[in-house]
Amino acid sequence: MKIYEVIMAGGGGSRFWPLSRQKKPKQLLNLSGGDIMLNETILRMEPLISREDAYIVTNREQAGILKSLLLPEVPESHVLLEPVGRNTAPCILYSALTLEKKHGDGIMCVFPADHHIARPDRYRQVLKEAAGAAEQTGRLVTIGIRPDRPATGYGYIACGRQVRPGVFEADRFVEKPDQKTAETYLAQGNYLWNSGVFVWKISAILKAFADCLPQMYQAMRGICGCLGTDREQEAVDRVYPQLESISVDYGIMEKSAGVLVLPGDFGWNDVGSLDALPVFHEKDGQGNLFLGDVLALDTAGCIVKGEKKLIALNGVQDLMVIDTEDALLVCPKDRAQDVRKIVELLHEQGRKEQ
Amino acid sequence: MKIYEVIMAGGGGSRFWPLSRQKKPKQLLNLSGGDIMLNETILRMEPLISREDAYIVTNREQAGILKSLLLPEVPESHVLLEPVGRNTAPCILYSALTLEKKHGDGIMCVFPADHHIARPDRYRQVLKEAAGAAEQTGRLVTIGIRPDRPATGYGYIACGRQVRPGVFEADRFVEKPDQKTAETYLAQGNYLWNSGVFVWKISAILKAFADCLPQMYQAMRGICGCLGTDREQEAVDRVYPQLESISVDYGIMEKSAGVLVLPGDFGWNDVGSLDALPVFHEKDGQGNLFLGDVLALDTAGCIVKGEKKLIALNGVQDLMVIDTEDALLVCPKDRAQDVRKIVELLHEQGRKEQ
Repeated sequence: MKIYEVIMAGGGGSRFWPLSRQKKPKQLLNLSGGDIMLNETILRMEPLISREDAYIVTNREQAGILKSLLLPEVPESHVLLEPVGRNTAPCILYSALTLEKKHGDGIMCVFPADHHIARPDRYRQVLKEAAGAAEQTGRLVTIGIRPDRPATGYGYIACGRQVRPGVFEADRFVEKPDQKTAETYLAQGNYLWNSGVFVWKISAILKAFADCLPQMYQAMRGICGCLGTDREQEAVDRVYPQLESISVDYGIMEKSAGVLVLPGDFGWNDVGSLDALPVFHEKDGQGNLFLGDVLALDTAGCIVKGEKKLIALNGVQDLMVIDTEDALLVCPKDRAQDVRKIVELLHEQGRKEQ
Repeated sequence: MKIYEVIMAGGGGSRFWPLSRQKKPKQLLNLSGGDIMLNETILRMEPLISREDAYIVTNREQAGILKSLLLPEVPESHVLLEPVGRNTAPCILYSALTLEKKHGDGIMCVFPADHHIARPDRYRQVLKEAAGAAEQTGRLVTIGIRPDRPATGYGYIACGRQVRPGVFEADRFVEKPDQKTAETYLAQGNYLWNSGVFVWKISAILKAFADCLPQMYQAMRGICGCLGTDREQEAVDRVYPQLESISVDYGIMEKSAGVLVLPGDFGWNDVGSLDALPVFHEKDGQGNLFLGDVLALDTAGCIVKGEKKLIALNGVQDLMVIDTEDALLVCPKDRAQDVRKIVELLHEQGRKEQ
């Protein structure tokens, strides 16, 4: 069965400010020195999925810049525009219906646009196994990440019975836990992080929508005739605002029987905040990551990113200094998550730098 | 007797990098929001000394930018150019001979170009008393600062017998002490900081040079015929490199009998490093000084200076962030003195930002 991919690329990513902006979120940034995260998501899968078979879902605000940066071989008609954000369920339904109309059935992989994978070979191997499982069983399949710490920023999946080598039944999907619960999950050993990567037959996910979210399904099924025509955007713009805002995890995965999960160990990182920048690069002997023209004395554990300007540091530890053309951020690494507070302030003040 | 002023403005000021540069030292910076430090030095004395009676000594490298920023009423012929730096003694001798040739005798005040005075009224009062003492006694007069801490960065003057209200004999000039000695000086109570401000009759300082530094005196006296002519620069350029490099404190003040000192209490600050920036401004309630477009969360005790760019801080304490067009400095306030190490590195690397 042929494999298609849908990349969810509508996120805002205020935690990457000042590198990311409202109109240029993380997935449109080149953080590795190679390509933007969105394109790297496509390129990473290339041996398994052709870039001509990639579909991108984004929003109108980011569409212009996204199209200008997207790999040129991805057909422009494969960029789907959501008029409003409604979480992941409507996004996946819209793209599944689009795939169905164009290709009938097939395997559909869903990827976030802004994750980093250190070992893409191993990643593709897991995805290939997932696609095989999805095709042979007709079940919904997801990829779980073996946790290495009691993280509270991710949803978890409880791994159940092994149905074939490396493939397990997903017993339970749980929302982001508190610290204590996360520690229990880690200790139990059978909990995986929910990576947001899904693999299923187009027909299987559409049936799951019909079963679990029938109202949403009917509304979108009602405009199927418009998909791929010049009435598509108008129809989507009309229907979308009425759809329930719900995640696919909560709306579909938690309610579906027989979901399968493949535990993956391929150096996954969701690059959730600026302190994850070092996943793309080598640190120096003092644990610093310096990108740009940096001169440092007696400095350790810092993340510094500049452009052309000379950045001189003396006697600082564990600090982030992120300099862009119109905004400079200075904050300790352990405050990386709090950068969104600055963006909130900028938003309140209606500032152009948000 | 008429009062003239000589402002020593040839310093390099690498400790103010990146605000100051090799070609634009501290005295040519506008740190107060008012005028450059050099002009503020002149303006501060205006009720006592006319700006037309100000003389500036600098070096060739800084001359162009200095002249372009200098108060226009200061005659261009009053800017004296040293071909090479030879510490303060030759600088004062050169300017004293210039004053003698132009004006005969008079009172000569010598000021560093880069100090800040919080209470200029009180300062002028002390200077006026110093000028009176210099005229009536014919002695060399200096201004001492009552120390408020055992600073090791200044020379000290031991205050002796009071010769009239507020005027004392200077018993001893001492070089920058170590910490322990400085603490002894502070405890003894009669030690003052050497401010580098001097007041004397032109004839008195020239006689002191003839007595204490006869070789230097003869060499400069030998080109007196050229001063004020179009042969001046050529003659100065020829003689200067052979002069001994020595401070006026060491070469003249320590060796002269009967030096007088006036203890001053007028909010003196030599603005020796970037952490002195707050003397020019009000701090906020968290002890921060923010100059420019600064947005801060949970930030205290910081000194931040930017230009047009937004600078966002989150969760930092006692940090200096100094952003200029082509260079950014980040270092703890207590490392302010170490900024020269960065400038040394830039110098070694032959970088344009030095």
